[in-house]
Amino acid sequence: MTNRTDMTRTSAGYFVSQETGIATDNPIATPQSSPPDILRCAYMELVVTDLAASREFYVDVLGLYVTEEDENTLYLRSTEEFIHHNLVLRKGEVAAVAAFSYRVRSPEELDRAVAFYTELGCDVRRSPDGFVKGVGDSVRVVDPLGFPYEFFYQSDHVERMSWRYDLHIPGELVRLDHFNQVTPDVPRAVKYMQDLGFRVTEDIQDEEGTVYAAWMRRKATVHDTAMTGGDGPRMHHVCFATHEKHNILAICDKLGALRRSDSIERGPGRHGVSNAFYLYLRDPDGHRVEVYTQDYYTGDPDNPVITWDVHDNQRRDWWGNPVVPSWYTDASLVLDLDGNPQPVHVRTDDSEMAVTIGADGFSYTRADENEGKLGNQL
Amino acid sequence: MTNRTDMTRTSAGYFVSQETGIATDNPIATPQSSPPDILRCAYMELVVTDLAASREFYVDVLGLYVTEEDENTLYLRSTEEFIHHNLVLRKGEVAAVAAFSYRVRSPEELDRAVAFYTELGCDVRRSPDGFVKGVGDSVRVVDPLGFPYEFFYQSDHVERMSWRYDLHIPGELVRLDHFNQVTPDVPRAVKYMQDLGFRVTEDIQDEEGTVYAAWMRRKATVHDTAMTGGDGPRMHHVCFATHEKHNILAICDKLGALRRSDSIERGPGRHGVSNAFYLYLRDPDGHRVEVYTQDYYTGDPDNPVITWDVHDNQRRDWWGNPVVPSWYTDASLVLDLDGNPQPVHVRTDDSEMAVTIGADGFSYTRADENEGKLGNQL
Amino acid sequence: MTNRTDMTRTSAGYFVSQETGIATDNPIATPQSSPPDILRCAYMELVVTDLAASREFYVDVLGLYVTEEDENTLYLRSTEEFIHHNLVLRKGEVAAVAAFSYRVRSPEELDRAVAFYTELGCDVRRSPDGFVKGVGDSVRVVDPLGFPYEFFYQSDHVERMSWRYDLHIPGELVRLDHFNQVTPDVPRAVKYMQDLGFRVTEDIQDEEGTVYAAWMRRKATVHDTAMTGGDGPRMHHVCFATHEKHNILAICDKLGALRRSDSIERGPGRHGVSNAFYLYLRDPDGHRVEVYTQDYYTGDPDNPVITWDVHDNQRRDWWGNPVVPSWYTDASLVLDLDGNPQPVHVRTDDSEMAVTIGADGFSYTRADENEGKLGNQL
Amino acid sequence: MTNRTDMTRTSAGYFVSQETGIATDNPIATPQSSPPDILRCAYMELVVTDLAASREFYVDVLGLYVTEEDENTLYLRSTEEFIHHNLVLRKGEVAAVAAFSYRVRSPEELDRAVAFYTELGCDVRRSPDGFVKGVGDSVRVVDPLGFPYEFFYQSDHVERMSWRYDLHIPGELVRLDHFNQVTPDVPRAVKYMQDLGFRVTEDIQDEEGTVYAAWMRRKATVHDTAMTGGDGPRMHHVCFATHEKHNILAICDKLGALRRSDSIERGPGRHGVSNAFYLYLRDPDGHRVEVYTQDYYTGDPDNPVITWDVHDNQRRDWWGNPVVPSWYTDASLVLDLDGNPQPVHVRTDDSEMAVTIGADGFSYTRADENEGKLGNQL
Repeated sequence: MTNRTDMTRTSAGYFVSQETGIATDNPIATPQSSPPDILRCAYMELVVTDLAASREFYVDVLGLYVTEEDENTLYLRSTEEFIHHNLVLRKGEVAAVAAFSYRVRSPEELDRAVAFYTELGCDVRRSPDGFVKGVGDSVRVVDPLGFPYEFFYQSDHVERMSWRYDLHIPGELVRLDHFNQVTPDVPRAVKYMQDLGFRVTEDIQDEEGTVYAAWMRRKATVHDTAMTGGDGPRMHHVCFATHEKHNILAICDKLGALRRSDSIERGPGRHGVSNAFYLYLRDPDGHRVEVYTQDYYTGDPDNPVITWDVHDNQRRDWWGNPVVPSWYTDASLVLDLDGNPQPVHVRTDDSEMAVTIGADGFSYTRADENEGKLGNQL
Repeated sequence: MTNRTDMTRTSAGYFVSQETGIATDNPIATPQSSPPDILRCAYMELVVTDLAASREFYVDVLGLYVTEEDENTLYLRSTEEFIHHNLVLRKGEVAAVAAFSYRVRSPEELDRAVAFYTELGCDVRRSPDGFVKGVGDSVRVVDPLGFPYEFFYQSDHVERMSWRYDLHIPGELVRLDHFNQVTPDVPRAVKYMQDLGFRVTEDIQDEEGTVYAAWMRRKATVHDTAMTGGDGPRMHHVCFATHEKHNILAICDKLGALRRSDSIERGPGRHGVSNAFYLYLRDPDGHRVEVYTQDYYTGDPDNPVITWDVHDNQRRDWWGNPVVPSWYTDASLVLDLDGNPQPVHVRTDDSEMAVTIGADGFSYTRADENEGKLGNQL
Repeated sequence: MTNRTDMTRTSAGYFVSQETGIATDNPIATPQSSPPDILRCAYMELVVTDLAASREFYVDVLGLYVTEEDENTLYLRSTEEFIHHNLVLRKGEVAAVAAFSYRVRSPEELDRAVAFYTELGCDVRRSPDGFVKGVGDSVRVVDPLGFPYEFFYQSDHVERMSWRYDLHIPGELVRLDHFNQVTPDVPRAVKYMQDLGFRVTEDIQDEEGTVYAAWMRRKATVHDTAMTGGDGPRMHHVCFATHEKHNILAICDKLGALRRSDSIERGPGRHGVSNAFYLYLRDPDGHRVEVYTQDYYTGDPDNPVITWDVHDNQRRDWWGNPVVPSWYTDASLVLDLDGNPQPVHVRTDDSEMAVTIGADGFSYTRADENEGKLGNQL
Repeated sequence: MTNRTDMTRTSAGYFVSQETGIATDNPIATPQSSPPDILRCAYMELVVTDLAASREFYVDVLGLYVTEEDENTLYLRSTEEFIHHNLVLRKGEVAAVAAFSYRVRSPEELDRAVAFYTELGCDVRRSPDGFVKGVGDSVRVVDPLGFPYEFFYQSDHVERMSWRYDLHIPGELVRLDHFNQVTPDVPRAVKYMQDLGFRVTEDIQDEEGTVYAAWMRRKATVHDTAMTGGDGPRMHHVCFATHEKHNILAICDKLGALRRSDSIERGPGRHGVSNAFYLYLRDPDGHRVEVYTQDYYTGDPDNPVITWDVHDNQRRDWWGNPVVPSWYTDASLVLDLDGNPQPVHVRTDDSEMAVTIGADGFSYTRADENEGKLGNQL
């Protein structure tokens, strides 16, 4: 999004620059209204087709804490959460995402959300008692990219389980870390997210400036959400953080013991982007869940934006291990506010998979050599 | 600071409540001027008496990265830092702290800092080129508690070493986490810090409401600084974070191998307060350095304040291991803006050590029993 | 036991030499019979006064697996064990050790055990069906030092739980590692253990040759048992191994969460002796349990014996953290073959605690300085 | 090698049985002479084509300690080793293995080695001063499978670096763990190794009894060497152990930082076989190096033999991650005693790769289902 001539190459191989406004062919107009002041990604509402199977996956295997549940819905949270939930599982016909929900700084921010999205011409709905249990006055919109976004401030408080080590498991998930969304035109999406108050922390580009993915934050981590280039709107994954790397390995070991290793889609590995240690799982409906630890502080206004070359074979996995094709191609449907799946639009820009893998793609380990890693030639 | 009847006891033994304005007998008047918008604790300037010995400790043993150095000064940073430094070691006659330095959100905040502290009647000095290398326009003050505080925005950028795993050591320090200050009257200090824009996250109190220590944050961790009750103004410690607990153990192991285990003052252990895993070291001048990992996110406005009973033997060490007396009594001098040590005022409130250890103190492991842990009776 | 002039001082501060026969004033005569070929320490039979409380400690807190249980007895094993048990808890009036049990290489070795101990004039009893469930033909003796030793080969096989990660806890105990015995005259004990086929791996001595403790092995780790100088015969501790250091920290964290931190007696820390990471707990009867990880391979015949100077403050804790007095003074009674507690004989040699701590003792961090660590002056 | 009807299926999916003599079509006759009493795999002598490049890999990247070096040879050891070396790198024209070297229990065992291999009709050579520095009287043979095996007892002692934490790196290699050899007829190889005194701990078979690989030990770990079915004699890998899993991850991170991630061939992951956490690297000549941690104790005579079904997709990677084809196909040449590469004989039994991957193979995650993991269809 920034010209490579304005970037500085680091000794580790990526580039740094300062964030700028994004140039995009087909921009969403910036509203005159101020955006709501967003604190952080707070929870995702997922529609699942078999609630018992999902409960087994998220509660029995992954160990999320049940704040509340009824016949059709599960309200789950991670260890250190003090608001009501980080994940709502709701039984439904079509596996999909019903809401990407963000917490805002105060009740007043909801008026801003209404004004901001109304000006954008979006479907905007407000529920003073919340759309789900445990959360009060909330605004839901279908945003200009087609995603169901929610904003709320009020939430019931529950006990942080951080000190309850008697209940912790080897693969303890301590925090909701981020969302990841699939959208066809990444610069268009980034420009809109900047208008919404997000800051870009990292992206993947080629030398011609095609943007394959971008990471954006409100809280001071690498991201609260990311935009991954692909057919969309779809949900790529929701991510929980652990404290240490062995916690992530323990999840893999447990899945093996349960003869559920086919839930492991990719990893574990070390990301180039974000520098975090990661694992990708697929839940019983195919929704992708990442587990992640140890990215870095990004809260300063001049936090350097990191740009990775799309052909750098260490950008997605620092160890050069191959990205499986399903990780590029599969994603979850998202719903409109009436619960109908949003239509999926095809990406017309180059695909990251095509330009890096296979006959027409290439990846390098060392920038001055044109050879890729064997394992990457799937 | 809040009445215990307004608190909720958790299943882990501590209390939670919402932050309130602090009642204090001898308050520092709240300025009319807005405080500067502080991002985070950014660096400490330490005067050391033997620069070579300090270099060995901070660079060769602890592995901080040298951004720049000259005959009299060392500029050091932690792995993921992108500003010029997190620690300045300056050779001098008297071991002391020359500045607790905070980064603000923009250059304009410095005018606010000047106005805020001028109104408080403090010694306020501004240096457009900074007081140290690598940092631009800066404001230094002696604050109402007697501490040399600095505020700055501009800093030279350097490369984050997070991806340079080839340079990492087993005890890698990745981030400056917080300061800790000793002051005689904790509620008075907290009230002033709230005026400066800090939020309280945790404290230690007795049933009568005597406050022994309080933790306060700007960034979304448990603290950027804490106020520890004792003779002050003095500096209790400066703290760096690691990624994992084994990194902290590796520092101990290395100190043993170097036959410097007498640098270990307390720990490693698990804090009750903050839930972090910790270690306290003493540098060649006796300045205390903490190494710390895995506290929790505190960035929501309604983040519950945690209050620990001073007699809860797990408040300072969750495992009930004793706090050595030197940890309570020793601290570093702080300097005024002319480089002279500030006079130290005696705490008149009860001392945490006295009320918890020894003939007149008591500590419990279980709130409903009145027996302490053997090891605590030093 | 070897003269310090025959030892080589290493760069880490301890001495190495080759094992020799031990000179002792009051030796136990070497039997003519060959000793049984011992594989490893296999289990301890502990008498506990409150079986429910002990079950809670060993099963609910420490996570040992229950192979079998009845009203009066619990048979427990560690994760990777394939024989019936590593710990038998039997309800009784007096908390004590009923047997230190070793597995031998074949059924025939039991005849050797009978001959060896008969020749030594010991009380020797054989039970073809075993003294406890899950174990067959067994020999029990009161050995010349007064300890109840057992030898067996046959045991029922059970499933190794190593792959059952779905059942593992953060503080998983994977293996029985060793016993530790208290006896007044360490060289006398070592000479007898050498006759029984044990090899010395490490010891603690002063310059005059007084031996304060010695570690001995059959399997290729630092020890299957150790002899600690003190009033005896008593049992100092039984030790289980974890895979990683964080597993040990997790036990501490869990004990804190359960408000049982007063079960933690010493540590966690790094041993000088054995180089292992350790923790000492006390069970509901006061029996001491160590948790330990990462010592080194000792299986070569010329494995260097390591000797630590008793005044080296890093010998017992590599980080120089103080050893609490109870660790030196407390130990469990042991029973004769009729179930009566063995009388305890006073150590007449110097006590390690006395020569290292307090007015008449001294400890150094660096051999060429005569100053100890503050924390050690309890 | 044992009929599946004589095995017990465990709850984790593999089978256990007691070791038996191996039935094989084309056995190597058992010598009348007793085999030498082998302690453990001790070192490998590797011929490398670019000594500087290999030094960089093994010393600068992997951190092995240099005991001694000259223009043509490097003698390297792992952290806790006290004999002269675990790896000899010798400059030569053809990258290959010059010796798989085992330490025996006493000097007298070398006479047994001579007799044993002479009776087998092998090329046997003895060098009273050793074939390499640091090792004394040695016997080298080309064994009946075509591998250059060495036996020695005497070695110079060097300091164990276990306590020298000041020199440790994040990816510290603490121990030589095992060798792995490629041979066409696994049962034939196992029968000969049993004659040499090795014990089988695990194997991979299909229901018809075809054996794809077997693991064998002298020391009490899962193996000192393994026989992998394939074209041979060739060397599959040499393996070093770390203490913890994060040490292995640190090696990957470092290789990424050095832009050498293409040295990572497979993993990191969790083995089904051995239960160890693993990583496979390729050195500058393509020699494969494994890094490995946390298998289990195997020293009891009735240690259960574990048999994995070749179609169990978790046998080689407990998480079901695919084995890259190069791992199955590539291996290093081995030399005869004159330094000439041994001819390679083709495996005629089924190939593990063919029966598990691709059009004609299949793998299951759950034994009662016939579906494989997506990622495995390379």
